[in-house]
Amino acid sequence: MAVEQVKMVKNILTGNDELAARNRDCFETAGVLAVNVMASPGAGKTSLIVKTIEELSGRARIGVIEGDIAGRIDTEKVLAAGAADAVQINTGGSCHLEANMIQQALNNLDLSALDIVFVENVGNLVCPTHWALGEQLKLCILSTPEGHDKPVKYPELFAASDVIVLSKMDLIDLVGFESDFFYESVRALNQAAPIFELSCRTGQGVARWIDWLVGMKTAVNGSAL
Amino acid sequence: MAVEQVKMVKNILTGNDELAARNRDCFETAGVLAVNVMASPGAGKTSLIVKTIEELSGRARIGVIEGDIAGRIDTEKVLAAGAADAVQINTGGSCHLEANMIQQALNNLDLSALDIVFVENVGNLVCPTHWALGEQLKLCILSTPEGHDKPVKYPELFAASDVIVLSKMDLIDLVGFESDFFYESVRALNQAAPIFELSCRTGQGVARWIDWLVGMKTAVNGSAL
Repeated sequence: MAVEQVKMVKNILTGNDELAARNRDCFETAGVLAVNVMASPGAGKTSLIVKTIEELSGRARIGVIEGDIAGRIDTEKVLAAGAADAVQINTGGSCHLEANMIQQALNNLDLSALDIVFVENVGNLVCPTHWALGEQLKLCILSTPEGHDKPVKYPELFAASDVIVLSKMDLIDLVGFESDFFYESVRALNQAAPIFELSCRTGQGVARWIDWLVGMKTAVNGSAL
Repeated sequence: MAVEQVKMVKNILTGNDELAARNRDCFETAGVLAVNVMASPGAGKTSLIVKTIEELSGRARIGVIEGDIAGRIDTEKVLAAGAADAVQINTGGSCHLEANMIQQALNNLDLSALDIVFVENVGNLVCPTHWALGEQLKLCILSTPEGHDKPVKYPELFAASDVIVLSKMDLIDLVGFESDFFYESVRALNQAAPIFELSCRTGQGVARWIDWLVGMKTAVNGSAL
């Protein structure tokens, strides 16, 4: 039974990868940069998306696919911030998004009218790592109140990410976050990913993130903003 | 294949429940209060356990079963704080603890020498909810920086918990946490669970939590500390 279980999980993941490849084709054909945003609940996924929409207002058309167990709070937030379009996925109970959910969301999103799509995954530092959605970039956010030891405890997401954001930098002096420990443990897992320190509340560090994202839009899609 | 998958998951959960019942028998026979501690990464699970160990020093013998994807940072922390015993479980990649992992941990824990056992689950606001471990109490911690909207987005854990701790109260004024929204959304899911507001950093609210826990030790096990 254990073997059967492993086989079935493998089958499901293979099916997911095939759908993810199709989603990726859709994004690439439309010249859209798709970013899979992964983090713990409350790390600041929506705040970073909202801030990015505001900073790129009039320059980039940003769509959002919102993944939540329940509710549509974040979809309302990103639309209020100026998202060009947004689709809510309620997973019901599932702790992560899967490629088939993105495929369904894409039926309700006109990619030809968008430049960047953020896929906000369910808040979870573990499970989303294993499910490709068709994104070109995996973004991991860690907030300073969560603590510097998280890369040691949850290594897979930090290892798999293309870019890492350390958020809530305005709180760093209040929460005992040890930057040296954090950087050493991330770099033991992932040498390549750039790390952006920022605070959506104060705006500190946001410009560097925006510049990098705009550069990636050109590098990945060959089409500048 | 979908049906087969559902059946298999049900079988696994049934097997888990049987093992959880056996674990619970072990705890109850030994007169130990077992608490399953669930929260997002970095919400303050270890901090609350450490604070509780310190506050009950000389009064209660506390054991800890630490669940992490990787590492043994928290086991070292709770032992340094004065835990009577601690066992580390590394799940390898699993996003939650299961009853069979607790069964194995119990082989390495002398329950007759303990009063309370905290089982610190993997940091995750979703998956641990579905897996009984044999605990008598389910404790959910939310930290103020995570935001007041989490009960709406992650309703299952808040609905299933016997007690809820709102942690990092020292940061509440800095992070825009709306208490009214939080209480209303929790109470829509769960009328019974007491909610303790506290800060392990400042000590604010900790005494009330300790008093309640000591009371539960007597109520659940019939044996006072």
